[in-house]
Amino acid sequence: MAERLVVIGGNPAGMAAATNARRGRPDLEIVAVERGSHTSYSSCGLPYLVGGAVGSVDDLVVRTPQEFRDHHRIDVRLRHEVVGIDLDARRIEVRALDQARTLHLGFDLLHLATGARPNRPDLPGVDEPWVHGVQTIDDTTRLLRAVEEQRCRRVVVVGSGYIGLELAEAFVDRGVEVTLLEAGPQPLAAIDPDLGAQVAAVLRGYGVGLRLGVQVQGFEDHQVLTSEGPVPADLVVLGTGVRPASELALDAGLAAGANGAIAVDHRQRTSASGIYAAGDCADTYHLVSRRRVHIALGTVANKTARVAGTNLGGGYATFPGVLGTALTRVCQFEIARTGLNQAQAREAGLEFVVGTAQATSRAGYFPGAVDVTARVIAERGTGRVLGGQLLGGDRVGKRIDTLATAITAGFTASQVIDLDLGYAPAVSTLWDPVQVAAQEAANLVARGSAR
Amino acid sequence: MAERLVVIGGNPAGMAAATNARRGRPDLEIVAVERGSHTSYSSCGLPYLVGGAVGSVDDLVVRTPQEFRDHHRIDVRLRHEVVGIDLDARRIEVRALDQARTLHLGFDLLHLATGARPNRPDLPGVDEPWVHGVQTIDDTTRLLRAVEEQRCRRVVVVGSGYIGLELAEAFVDRGVEVTLLEAGPQPLAAIDPDLGAQVAAVLRGYGVGLRLGVQVQGFEDHQVLTSEGPVPADLVVLGTGVRPASELALDAGLAAGANGAIAVDHRQRTSASGIYAAGDCADTYHLVSRRRVHIALGTVANKTARVAGTNLGGGYATFPGVLGTALTRVCQFEIARTGLNQAQAREAGLEFVVGTAQATSRAGYFPGAVDVTARVIAERGTGRVLGGQLLGGDRVGKRIDTLATAITAGFTASQVIDLDLGYAPAVSTLWDPVQVAAQEAANLVARGSAR
Repeated sequence: MAERLVVIGGNPAGMAAATNARRGRPDLEIVAVERGSHTSYSSCGLPYLVGGAVGSVDDLVVRTPQEFRDHHRIDVRLRHEVVGIDLDARRIEVRALDQARTLHLGFDLLHLATGARPNRPDLPGVDEPWVHGVQTIDDTTRLLRAVEEQRCRRVVVVGSGYIGLELAEAFVDRGVEVTLLEAGPQPLAAIDPDLGAQVAAVLRGYGVGLRLGVQVQGFEDHQVLTSEGPVPADLVVLGTGVRPASELALDAGLAAGANGAIAVDHRQRTSASGIYAAGDCADTYHLVSRRRVHIALGTVANKTARVAGTNLGGGYATFPGVLGTALTRVCQFEIARTGLNQAQAREAGLEFVVGTAQATSRAGYFPGAVDVTARVIAERGTGRVLGGQLLGGDRVGKRIDTLATAITAGFTASQVIDLDLGYAPAVSTLWDPVQVAAQEAANLVARGSAR
Repeated sequence: MAERLVVIGGNPAGMAAATNARRGRPDLEIVAVERGSHTSYSSCGLPYLVGGAVGSVDDLVVRTPQEFRDHHRIDVRLRHEVVGIDLDARRIEVRALDQARTLHLGFDLLHLATGARPNRPDLPGVDEPWVHGVQTIDDTTRLLRAVEEQRCRRVVVVGSGYIGLELAEAFVDRGVEVTLLEAGPQPLAAIDPDLGAQVAAVLRGYGVGLRLGVQVQGFEDHQVLTSEGPVPADLVVLGTGVRPASELALDAGLAAGANGAIAVDHRQRTSASGIYAAGDCADTYHLVSRRRVHIALGTVANKTARVAGTNLGGGYATFPGVLGTALTRVCQFEIARTGLNQAQAREAGLEFVVGTAQATSRAGYFPGAVDVTARVIAERGTGRVLGGQLLGGDRVGKRIDTLATAITAGFTASQVIDLDLGYAPAVSTLWDPVQVAAQEAANLVARGSAR
């Protein structure tokens, strides 16, 4: 009898692993079970479904179950929720949601791609029907229906991470009055506070009612109760981060890693033989802090799934790790970061200098040039680049990739200055903003070592 | 008496060296002599002066002689042409063009930034007043005056390198009928032929009368004589490349390097003690081919000038080398390349595989996404990335920097796949096009080693 690989989770972290495993092992029986109604969609696109830039749910679906069946011989079962994993018997227990029946499915190999779920803060009223989380297509469909049916005029977004910001923009684009409540002193804690202040100005300029330092205390009668008094809301969306959906795995006895995620090694193997995990449910390795971390991003999910799938298919692949590179465009403004920010570097016990450059996106004399802020954080003494941040319009965000690549290479700030990067006045400056920031950092490193 | 540094050339390759030397040595007397009428301007911006995107010559000037005098105590002498260098006497002979007199200027340190000059093919009529080269602001001013005075309707651009393409676009933007004559089978020999064909289609679509495989034989009676018959031209612009303006240095006895440029070492020192060179007049080192090369680009000029200036100022700096990274936007289409193309890799005796990806600039479902072609050339066996090319609109050109950084790091195609690059559906795809191309290349490398 053919060996069977069971994949839990029809998202890209599951399906990319399944297709990679298929490539290596044509003989394998592959079954994928998914609780929701769709396979393999771009969850990063969900906010744009709310804002209207993306017209339909179908646009976000990369591949349908039928395509997986036809092209990869993968048996996809939608609306099937896994309720238990038995490591000894090597089988899972599954509830077929539409038939309201439970079945068992044996496996030889198992891949976990159970993803993440939105944090729901433990507050009175958080389970009210007008308080939404957005993680899946099904969540988003529910949210959109609510927006349309209730002729929603006032929305409160709680939390100013990437999803919170993107949703706030999306509602402004729909013509809805948006209040964005953030408990901390700045939006987007992933970047340094002074750069967060720039983002705050951009949000307010776009029409987002940003309120900082506000503690949410509960939800009642279409009001968000806060430390600063009640805020009326036809609808609330929680953008308060996600946590790994790892309960199933941990309950079965698999080891836990960073932030309660499933612990995996460099081949995406969990603590049990023949069982792999990838994507938002698993932890990973940070190349700069050299610690296990949990980073729930689509890029990491796809990369780790590819590695898991290759190994599941009998091949050999390792995942080197992540930098926490993240990029978002909010209100026509791009925010990008990689490596460690100042708080993270401090937390990792690293001493550093900070080089910051005010530059332009194109040659200063060229029409369309806009202001850009670039930052390079470099280790004191060695000059090794630890992190970078980039803010501005005019498509500069992707230039964070230069720093991500340089950090991966272990380059110093001085080495970044010497990089032979592309230049044309119509699209860039002669010295890229990241090089100007690297020059600042290199000067500070040199000054430090001269003391 | 203070030591004197003489800088020949008021362009960025001269003035950036001068200001860096000043930083290191406040005691130095610094004199810069420049044949033309401007200091330190962006020659890469000249085509846009022709096209009208840049309104005035002054916009291109980064710093005026007065600013160099006031902020850096650099004595700039415009309209002074150096006619001889006496290495033994350590002095230069200078013609003050406006006073028609000759003077001598002694130096302790000398920096050569004599730049490049446009190739003027040795053809009958090439010195006709309606046949122009464009290298300096003064050239461009003359060209613009000619365009305006002659109510120019038909322009022929000879040669389809970067300058040729940018000028062809500029004339189309002015509403002039443009014929672009190229002797080779494709425009832009810096990229592979099949990608050159894409560029040809873009040029034609924009209204450039591109003619390939046409040999220019001479210029006569406002006609360009060619292997395919005469082409009428109110005005001709030569875009037939540049050669190093190194005669002065070589006549004085300095050693010649690649392509007749001044030979320099990793500190930008020429063969004579205390004499440095940087920018288009000097040769440099190619990090992939490991050969001396001559690359006349503003990025290289500014970087090598910085290194020369630091050393002239008593500091220590070395220049690691170049990748020949180049980027241009022509007709709203960006063309970027780095490292070796296929012809160059072959010429360097390297065996390679070619990974090419058809991708999009943003998530396929996101409004504004356009087609992108990415290419990664990797060494057979090792998988080391040797070069890359990137074509498309929507600001994708700068993503060549990821490959430039990866090549500098000595990364393999597989390592490029694992890079933690930025992603947001509004500005990029989950796998960057260079990663998709790297995956193709890595597959071919693996297949090759499995044989």
